[in-house]
Amino acid sequence: MRYDQNISTVWQDNLRVVLVATRNPLNIGASARAMANFGFSRLRVVNAYDVAFREARSAVGAAPLLRAAEDYASLAEAVADCRLVVGTTSVGHRELQHPLRRLEFGARLIRRALPEAPVALLFGSEKFGLGNDDLSHCHWLMRIPTEPGDLSMNLGQAVALCLYELARDSKAAAAKPPKTIARAAAGETEQVTLLLLDILRKSGYVNPVTAASTEEKVRRLVRRLDIAGRDAPVLLGMLRQILWKVG
Amino acid sequence: MRYDQNISTVWQDNLRVVLVATRNPLNIGASARAMANFGFSRLRVVNAYDVAFREARSAVGAAPLLRAAEDYASLAEAVADCRLVVGTTSVGHRELQHPLRRLEFGARLIRRALPEAPVALLFGSEKFGLGNDDLSHCHWLMRIPTEPGDLSMNLGQAVALCLYELARDSKAAAAKPPKTIARAAAGETEQVTLLLLDILRKSGYVNPVTAASTEEKVRRLVRRLDIAGRDAPVLLGMLRQILWKVG
Repeated sequence: MRYDQNISTVWQDNLRVVLVATRNPLNIGASARAMANFGFSRLRVVNAYDVAFREARSAVGAAPLLRAAEDYASLAEAVADCRLVVGTTSVGHRELQHPLRRLEFGARLIRRALPEAPVALLFGSEKFGLGNDDLSHCHWLMRIPTEPGDLSMNLGQAVALCLYELARDSKAAAAKPPKTIARAAAGETEQVTLLLLDILRKSGYVNPVTAASTEEKVRRLVRRLDIAGRDAPVLLGMLRQILWKVG
Repeated sequence: MRYDQNISTVWQDNLRVVLVATRNPLNIGASARAMANFGFSRLRVVNAYDVAFREARSAVGAAPLLRAAEDYASLAEAVADCRLVVGTTSVGHRELQHPLRRLEFGARLIRRALPEAPVALLFGSEKFGLGNDDLSHCHWLMRIPTEPGDLSMNLGQAVALCLYELARDSKAAAAKPPKTIARAAAGETEQVTLLLLDILRKSGYVNPVTAASTEEKVRRLVRRLDIAGRDAPVLLGMLRQILWKVG
């Protein structure tokens, strides 16, 4: 899926990213940046610390999106125009009162709802996530499938993951299967590169003025060869022999 | 896919996340946190600003992983034991010398390679990404499919996206299709909630001591009803009538 630059499609324009009680301005900025990265534009902020919001507005990179961000005093107002309200969580909730869907599947439901009507995607505060009162506004919850344990996700990263999954192209993932090759270790490949470069230098191939760029070109060329593991020792033997000859 | 807590499986243990020339300690910390979130543990750092690395080591949340991080003076050493070296980029490269694969597909190639041998996943500096010299060490590049334009991704978010995609469960995304309902707008649903609460209060249902928790319970209950758009006005009419009666 490709989008025209700076033109949000209807489904993208229907998503409202709602940050509830965010404390750290860096996280508001990072969320806005991720939205820009994935073509979403409607940011709403509820009960942010005033200072955080003002600092974030002046952050580099996502300025137009942040300037257009809407500031709400209550979550109810922030989601009033939405047909579907989805809360996010990375850590399992102690007492689960809502249907909980994994990101991979939940994002699909949201994708289907977006062309029809506005959808709110809620992110809670860095420290506590969404509170019970916030959750009571949600139709269901979406869980980012992290490792079990107490380590919650960074807010900006959580926003990026959800938006990425919404924009994700399943067709790209299903493309033709890769061929399996037992590749040489990078250390061996680099040995090949260095030997070859040594040979080229000693052969007068390398112009001292452009030596650095030649080195890079050769290194890339060797990588493109995709040397198989069992070929590496053979190649190295050949190169050592040549080096002995030219040196 | 579920993992045992604190036990990296072989494929996870084979991934080396390599941060090249990272400047901001927050990004090293955020990368480590994302690794912990998705069950990866082998972090390598090349040419980080010393101060950044030392500050990151003392960051909250991902301490054990960061303490175990390995510090390298050159990229060649950092990837020497890897059979596959993949560079990441979010902005299209000016002069493309490498095969470029979208994250959705590239991650699949990496997933296949991981059980067999170590794989390095490279992330460049915040400002410039991976340099040409770094790229010359790569077998191919993986592109995070962001919007066209010059806005690069935040480093910590890019790391999180790549690791999420590696750990992503395609089966979860392919689960049973969702039912499509034209839901009531959240504003209407909230009107139903408020009317119902008003009625309950006036009916003596609400204990003033536990009023707050009752309000949440009712709000959740109303959300679980999943009120259809065309039912909302009907319900509201009924509730208004009841409210008039009990008030």
